[in-house]
Amino acid sequence: MTYCLGILLSSGLVMAADSRSNAGVDDFTSVRKLEVTAVPGERVITILSAGNLATTQSVVAQLREARGTGGGRDLHAAKTMYLAARIVGDTLREVIARDGTYVQPYGDATGSFIVGGQIAGETHRLFQIYAAGNFVEASDRSPYLQLGETKYGKPILDRALSHDSPLDEAAKLALLSFDATMRSDLSVAMPIDILRYRKDSFSSADKASLKRDDPYWSALSAAYGAGLAALVDGLPPPPDWSA
Amino acid sequence: MTYCLGILLSSGLVMAADSRSNAGVDDFTSVRKLEVTAVPGERVITILSAGNLATTQSVVAQLREARGTGGGRDLHAAKTMYLAARIVGDTLREVIARDGTYVQPYGDATGSFIVGGQIAGETHRLFQIYAAGNFVEASDRSPYLQLGETKYGKPILDRALSHDSPLDEAAKLALLSFDATMRSDLSVAMPIDILRYRKDSFSSADKASLKRDDPYWSALSAAYGAGLAALVDGLPPPPDWSA
Repeated sequence: MTYCLGILLSSGLVMAADSRSNAGVDDFTSVRKLEVTAVPGERVITILSAGNLATTQSVVAQLREARGTGGGRDLHAAKTMYLAARIVGDTLREVIARDGTYVQPYGDATGSFIVGGQIAGETHRLFQIYAAGNFVEASDRSPYLQLGETKYGKPILDRALSHDSPLDEAAKLALLSFDATMRSDLSVAMPIDILRYRKDSFSSADKASLKRDDPYWSALSAAYGAGLAALVDGLPPPPDWSA
Repeated sequence: MTYCLGILLSSGLVMAADSRSNAGVDDFTSVRKLEVTAVPGERVITILSAGNLATTQSVVAQLREARGTGGGRDLHAAKTMYLAARIVGDTLREVIARDGTYVQPYGDATGSFIVGGQIAGETHRLFQIYAAGNFVEASDRSPYLQLGETKYGKPILDRALSHDSPLDEAAKLALLSFDATMRSDLSVAMPIDILRYRKDSFSSADKASLKRDDPYWSALSAAYGAGLAALVDGLPPPPDWSA
């Protein structure tokens, strides 16, 4: 499995992915599912990947090779994030058209993506590209998108995240959403690749790969655990229903 | 879908179930999935149901009719909770043997159960009965069992619940687990039937059916939401990763 999360805020974006790839519990490895391409001052485009690793790596590799060529698949030539999302979807369709029937006897060849970023001339935007290559866009009404093992990490987002949450608050919530997921699903694991993008900065510098022993990660998780226990402890107990 | 939760504590049991039954989003109704049978001072047995409603209702109805007959399916004659769990599993096998092939063209005939309670002469116990009629028992290492839509409600239990949690604390956590689930899955809905059983009380009196406007439910949910927002707000922000 995989867990990827993209958050659209009025102040920017938070993009995060875990690193585990596995074919059964006895065969797993660590991969990178967060790809960032940037032209400082002009564009930052982030791609999160889930699904068949050969498929998603092939899509990302082709997009890298097309960069700067000025062709129809060049993310550095796309004029809007909508067109960038279409490039990712079209490339996915191409890879599946080439590999799909060969892979089918062994499993599912499909993949899916979250694409977020900003291109000069418009605001920052966030898309989810389905296995079919079509896509939907996040908005202030549905400010986050998920791929993979989505359920464990959803309650804390639904409770505490909004489109107007500050960037740092959303980054904390994203990491707590990963924490909840990794406690229940062994197929989602660190390092967590995370990017905090401030609107109009056109910089991808504020990113990290958090390993299990990262001091901030450990402090956040411990403080949340202690705080949650204290919170529940302080809530009113149920009345005596036998009375 | 359905959400059922049974919690085994050193001090007793918490048993809870939602009420929604649905065949598609345009056809849903409210049913009772928590069945309690008790002989005051001697035994309390609770059964939570998930799966095909005709199957689970048939199992519960047969168990009611067998009560007090002294036969092999009489929950009031079972000497241990292990034997009570076996009665539920055997009855499920019988119903599926009778109905299964007729139901198959229309869908899944199977069901599953959580059975918890106490019979004088032994301690309180908690079991999960699978669709196959076999079952597993909860312990201090795995103090809760779930049926149905299990993922949304799991993180708060894993974070804050232990076998030694007080009964009231566990009842709060059970309700917060339902709250998380109902925020994400329309096929899980109130009323929530909940029983708080104190070990050696042999009484099933402390139970309730919580509707959406229940004052305790509303207060708990609101206080938790406000407390969680304050907790996340107070956690340390991520460092500047671009530094």
